Amino acid sequence: MQNFTFHNPTRIIFGEGQIAALDTQVPREARVLITCGGGSIKSNGVLAQVQAALGERASFVFEGIEPNPTYETLMQAVAVARERNIDFLLAVGGGSVIDGTKFIAAALKFNGEPWDILAKQTPVRDAVPFGSVLTLPATGSEMNNGSVISHRANGDKLFFTSDATYPLFSVLDPTTTYSLPARQIANGVVDAFVHTVEQYLTYPVDAKVQDRFAEGLLLTLTEVGPQALAEPKNYAVRANLMWTATLALNGLIGAGVPQDWATHMLGHEITALHGLDHAQTLAIVLPAMLTVRKEQKRAKLLQYAERVWNITEGSEDERIDAGIAATRAFFERMTVATRLRDYKVSGESVATLIAKLEEHGMTALGERGDVTLEVSRRVYELAV
Amino acid sequence: MQNFTFHNPTRIIFGEGQIAALDTQVPREARVLITCGGGSIKSNGVLAQVQAALGERASFVFEGIEPNPTYETLMQAVAVARERNIDFLLAVGGGSVIDGTKFIAAALKFNGEPWDILAKQTPVRDAVPFGSVLTLPATGSEMNNGSVISHRANGDKLFFTSDATYPLFSVLDPTTTYSLPARQIANGVVDAFVHTVEQYLTYPVDAKVQDRFAEGLLLTLTEVGPQALAEPKNYAVRANLMWTATLALNGLIGAGVPQDWATHMLGHEITALHGLDHAQTLAIVLPAMLTVRKEQKRAKLLQYAERVWNITEGSEDERIDAGIAATRAFFERMTVATRLRDYKVSGESVATLIAKLEEHGMTALGERGDVTLEVSRRVYELAV
Repeated sequence: MQNFTFHNPTRIIFGEGQIAALDTQVPREARVLITCGGGSIKSNGVLAQVQAALGERASFVFEGIEPNPTYETLMQAVAVARERNIDFLLAVGGGSVIDGTKFIAAALKFNGEPWDILAKQTPVRDAVPFGSVLTLPATGSEMNNGSVISHRANGDKLFFTSDATYPLFSVLDPTTTYSLPARQIANGVVDAFVHTVEQYLTYPVDAKVQDRFAEGLLLTLTEVGPQALAEPKNYAVRANLMWTATLALNGLIGAGVPQDWATHMLGHEITALHGLDHAQTLAIVLPAMLTVRKEQKRAKLLQYAERVWNITEGSEDERIDAGIAATRAFFERMTVATRLRDYKVSGESVATLIAKLEEHGMTALGERGDVTLEVSRRVYELAV
Repeated sequence: MQNFTFHNPTRIIFGEGQIAALDTQVPREARVLITCGGGSIKSNGVLAQVQAALGERASFVFEGIEPNPTYETLMQAVAVARERNIDFLLAVGGGSVIDGTKFIAAALKFNGEPWDILAKQTPVRDAVPFGSVLTLPATGSEMNNGSVISHRANGDKLFFTSDATYPLFSVLDPTTTYSLPARQIANGVVDAFVHTVEQYLTYPVDAKVQDRFAEGLLLTLTEVGPQALAEPKNYAVRANLMWTATLALNGLIGAGVPQDWATHMLGHEITALHGLDHAQTLAIVLPAMLTVRKEQKRAKLLQYAERVWNITEGSEDERIDAGIAATRAFFERMTVATRLRDYKVSGESVATLIAKLEEHGMTALGERGDVTLEVSRRVYELAV
């Protein structure tokens, strides 16, 4: 096990009816800016529940935070918050809304140009306090301090973290997910699965607990993922999916172990170039990534095949291949296609994708920094 | 899954050499009271490491917090802390030292008689900030807000929790455990195992993640427990044991599920009456408890037998019995005997133990409150 620090102060308030708990979590005198995406929280009644729980508090709604939230939109929210003397933010939505709200919270207390938080990684030392009401299980943003923000004007998509940007609390009510489109549920399952894999399928450091927890999350996702598509209003299924997705990226399973994240980096370039959903790119890249890096990941791939997919027969290579095939089959069963051509992207894109990786300095990825552009090229080619 | 709130703000700093991190965690101007038990932290060099890390800070040592820490001793520490104008406490030791330090921290800010925190459950709203350096993996006190304190004069052993009594940080350096006596390691493994079982072996609420995590902890303990006895200086083994014991009682696996704790309650009476180690009493009571309550716990016992002990052959009753037998065999393999008679306690004690349970109001224990005195009597009798 590697040395680590683990610290996660976010309070999770979980279960049906818990939106009402906002009344105990948001300071009584707060002036609240509710941040959200499109209109779904209006049509499904979540916004009304939130406003009812806030009661007499002064609250305002900022709508329009997009998937892959942009600096441009978020700076509009910053202006609104200043104008309204806001001192508490409440993100109501999925990972994009929560990521965006972290940036708004930091920007409001930042001296200088807030884009420097991302472009120059200027440390964020303070932020307006904020909470979240999660409506889409996927990214884990509701219980971590990370945020990915895009710059519409220059095309950058950058990441920041800060001890000041943990949500104070997050309300996780599984019933808020009942009305989600199947595509978003499927994407969320794939996203949580690959988050877990990035922190697990590396090389062994004898971190037995972290391995068991990661395997527990993967096993749960393989079980509840297809059910979540088949039975949208099955509370237990949605509850397990929601809690699993949070635990997949709250720092716990990644504490004390190597981490990969090359699949995410290669996926980001596909989204940037071709507009595919984030989870679609992960489903495309991961099986190819594991195949190309089979030797480097041999020991953990064998453990993964056995403990997650119950594959115990055959030679080592057969078991590894079967584990990767099972992963692909799981994504396909979740209705997320796993090859570039399924999205009408041909092999001709590979050169451009590699050029973009190079432009972004992504030349030594993975848990050992050995995913060179040449390795990435083979991954993309295998993913066609 | 049941509704839950999960919040755990303690920062964990894990790994060899991490005691040096105290310099970044303890405020620079703090006046520190180091609290500890006997002399082991002097002989194994831990105290010297702690003092070196604290550097120029004013620090004082309060020695003598006993196993099952007493109000009387802790009030002496409170007096010392007042005299020295202490504003930061640093517990260096195992669960008893950390539990005791939580009480000192609360008592220093308490208006009135501090024993009321336990006897009257007067809420603790404030406490002196404190951290810990853990040297004994077992109780989980390093990452929770609970504390068990005994009153020497009247024989009470009572419990309190407060949001103000989470350690700010806990340093977990597995090498500090190398010099522990085998008996303490064995007890710690049993303690962490039974903590997990109390939150897992109840009735199903379709909490798949919590089940998988609990099973992951149990599987890890069955693997590293015997190794921890056989190879005292195996870093990876001690690291896995240490992190597992913390995770067994930090609120995570118990969030959203029923909890039992009847084994602990019956065990406490044995310690009070006969002076057995806490873990010894758990090893005695648990196999009998599971046997007597087999019907109520049938579904989870079957899951436990299969997932933790890989028992898949035979009738349901055979599998359940085999799972319970495997549990007993594991404790025995950890050199912790599992019957009262092994400790020279005879069946004649049962009547007194039951009378004590009744005196303490322990008449409706367990996850359903159906462990009556009659059920407890059968458990004790089976445990003879």
